[in-house]
Amino acid sequence: MNFTDLIIKKRNGGELSSEEIDFFIKGVTERSLPDYQISAMLMAICIKSLNYRETADLTMAMAHSGRVLDLSDIDGIKVDKHSTGGVADTTTLILAPLTASLGLKVIKMSGRGLGHTGGTIDKLESIPGFNTALGITRAAEQVNNIGIAVMGQTEDLAPADKYLYALRDVTGTVESIPLIAASIMSKKLAAGSDAIVLDVKYGSGAFMKTLEDAQALARTMVNIGLSAGKKTTAVITPMDRPLGDNIGNSLEVIEAIEILKGKKDGRLKRVALELAAHMLVLGGIANDRDTALYLLDKNIENGKGLEKFEEMINAQGGDPNVCEDYSLFPQPKCSLCIKAEKSGCITEINTTDIGRASVALGAGRLVKDTRLDLSAGIIMHTTLGEHIAVGDIIAEVFAADSEKCTAASDIISKAITISDREAEPLPLFGEV
Amino acid sequence: MNFTDLIIKKRNGGELSSEEIDFFIKGVTERSLPDYQISAMLMAICIKSLNYRETADLTMAMAHSGRVLDLSDIDGIKVDKHSTGGVADTTTLILAPLTASLGLKVIKMSGRGLGHTGGTIDKLESIPGFNTALGITRAAEQVNNIGIAVMGQTEDLAPADKYLYALRDVTGTVESIPLIAASIMSKKLAAGSDAIVLDVKYGSGAFMKTLEDAQALARTMVNIGLSAGKKTTAVITPMDRPLGDNIGNSLEVIEAIEILKGKKDGRLKRVALELAAHMLVLGGIANDRDTALYLLDKNIENGKGLEKFEEMINAQGGDPNVCEDYSLFPQPKCSLCIKAEKSGCITEINTTDIGRASVALGAGRLVKDTRLDLSAGIIMHTTLGEHIAVGDIIAEVFAADSEKCTAASDIISKAITISDREAEPLPLFGEV
Repeated sequence: MNFTDLIIKKRNGGELSSEEIDFFIKGVTERSLPDYQISAMLMAICIKSLNYRETADLTMAMAHSGRVLDLSDIDGIKVDKHSTGGVADTTTLILAPLTASLGLKVIKMSGRGLGHTGGTIDKLESIPGFNTALGITRAAEQVNNIGIAVMGQTEDLAPADKYLYALRDVTGTVESIPLIAASIMSKKLAAGSDAIVLDVKYGSGAFMKTLEDAQALARTMVNIGLSAGKKTTAVITPMDRPLGDNIGNSLEVIEAIEILKGKKDGRLKRVALELAAHMLVLGGIANDRDTALYLLDKNIENGKGLEKFEEMINAQGGDPNVCEDYSLFPQPKCSLCIKAEKSGCITEINTTDIGRASVALGAGRLVKDTRLDLSAGIIMHTTLGEHIAVGDIIAEVFAADSEKCTAASDIISKAITISDREAEPLPLFGEV
Repeated sequence: MNFTDLIIKKRNGGELSSEEIDFFIKGVTERSLPDYQISAMLMAICIKSLNYRETADLTMAMAHSGRVLDLSDIDGIKVDKHSTGGVADTTTLILAPLTASLGLKVIKMSGRGLGHTGGTIDKLESIPGFNTALGITRAAEQVNNIGIAVMGQTEDLAPADKYLYALRDVTGTVESIPLIAASIMSKKLAAGSDAIVLDVKYGSGAFMKTLEDAQALARTMVNIGLSAGKKTTAVITPMDRPLGDNIGNSLEVIEAIEILKGKKDGRLKRVALELAAHMLVLGGIANDRDTALYLLDKNIENGKGLEKFEEMINAQGGDPNVCEDYSLFPQPKCSLCIKAEKSGCITEINTTDIGRASVALGAGRLVKDTRLDLSAGIIMHTTLGEHIAVGDIIAEVFAADSEKCTAASDIISKAITISDREAEPLPLFGEV
């Protein structure tokens, strides 16, 4: 097979066969194709796109470019969940213990934060002693014992995706729905679960800026999942503001605990429970969404969700007392209140910039391997559509020094639009 | 300037500014841009195209990536000619001495054959002793003395083009009219002449398969020439059959000599004189095409064209006696006649395959630096639209051994369609 011919075929809008896609990904994995040919192909795909069949084949080829985990040692249906990433998006810490407390087997590999979005692994590490570096064997054992494990991605899953992603990043070929879908789903398929619930974000703080793009991405990913024989559901949710009120690692864990305690309602809780309900349905624990929501509410009320969270913290070496005593979390040295300089309605929150403010505070990172300040972050005191008066507190920021607080305050003030007209917030669920 | 942003701009169909194009070509020339970024940009250009302004800017940037020749030492208007390449396309050997014999200053850099197309430099080297490796200084001196020099491209003209072409060849980004136009014209502009006549080929043996593509390429190239302040004319001619009857290096020189002697008419002569006429007009030797054609005919009749050719051979170390005694050319060891196996009209000649047959005979090369058999080649005895009977000679092939002759005969037999219906040949001039 001559790879230049395949590039030309895709450049002219042709359809690549399964064998041709396998040849492509084999060449990427084995480093037998030069980068300049791979990037020409990526650009042709980016502009001419891939149909569902090609995208599914690409995903399968990428999933099988490394080890595909075998979770058959864990009894029961394993349901994975993935969010396309956002700000104050702490659903995993709520839905994982809640669904586990209802009997679902939850083995979840999570990532670290990058850019304006946070990562579950960083958040969990704000719990003193918590170990996220479980091997797959130990994690499987823990799931069989207590039904839940949340861990960093230790295995080199879908190495072809890793290679392609690095190349896409520097060749202007990131913005392609088939390539984004294949990248996400190849890792999910390699992670070995039986069913997948996807949370596809759209809006100012998300990768997909419009509902239409989010719908297209969701449809593509569901199609890939089904093609691979996995039950797959996608929920589309807006990222026109931070999902929760707290942004930053320990702050987000605290918000999740408050929700598990039943002390806090709001958008983060609603999205977490919606995703959890779909997980319970796919996992065969509940017959339908309404039953699932009822069960989830009950396990918040009776404290079983929080109990499961504490069990997990304990099993992974952390101090479960953090749930009762938040002062056990790392504490920030400085804080600063941001006050409204004019009255009106909050009509826009540039969520990406809020994420950037959290990076400025030390709670996030722009490049890999940056050490985070796990105590830093933001607590939002207002949200989209709220009316505020001059002097009202918009948000509070926390960091290691006052320079960081000031820098972040400036970003946040500019990111929030206070206006005379009313806000037009996005509906909480775009589509399920 | 961030090159990834420029790639994204072009990927989204945006227009690159002059500064951005300069940045691109500077990065290519200085090797500061990695190949994978260059190839992503080339693919984006290939699919999203460049407008006239961008194409002209790209060409100028490429022309100035190396030395731009200064031909001011040569008196008079220097007119260059370029053909997009074909089979039995020997116009240079006819028009260069003819126009020089009428007072035009002809300094022509030519290339070697590659693939199914021949090259003027290889053809001239079939003349015993002929030296094509003149430096620019010696060539300029020769032009001031006798009005003509035809030489290989010794200077490293437009190195960015050379680099980009090699990358395009392996990344499926050759077929782009702006990139083809910029590649050709950057070398022409760097070669330093005052005016340019272009012969744009279309049809089965040409790079452009349709008249529309040839027109688009011609328009783009003329536009680039005019943008650079050079008088530029393009003639569009068909390559639905070999242009001359002889294919192969010494064979094509012989056909050119026969035409200069006035012993041979036909398509090759008509195209060569048409191009020569435009050169004379651009060079200020003739006021209009008709006058130019009259002058050209006269200098065939009175032998001045042939005389100038002999003068050039002499000046470049070759033996001018070849013009009277063709046995002084290298002689082939074997020959074979190809006879018609059925009667009918010749309705199609796959000209690329005829070129491939000449490669099989040793007259052409598939990869650079292959040594040619300068005596090998094909003489066509029939052409498109002719009616033939079983047993009529279609063509004669010449090579160093009978295996090559047989292999080429097979290719030629398959390349020629004999049919019951009439042929529909393309008009000789598509557009001027």
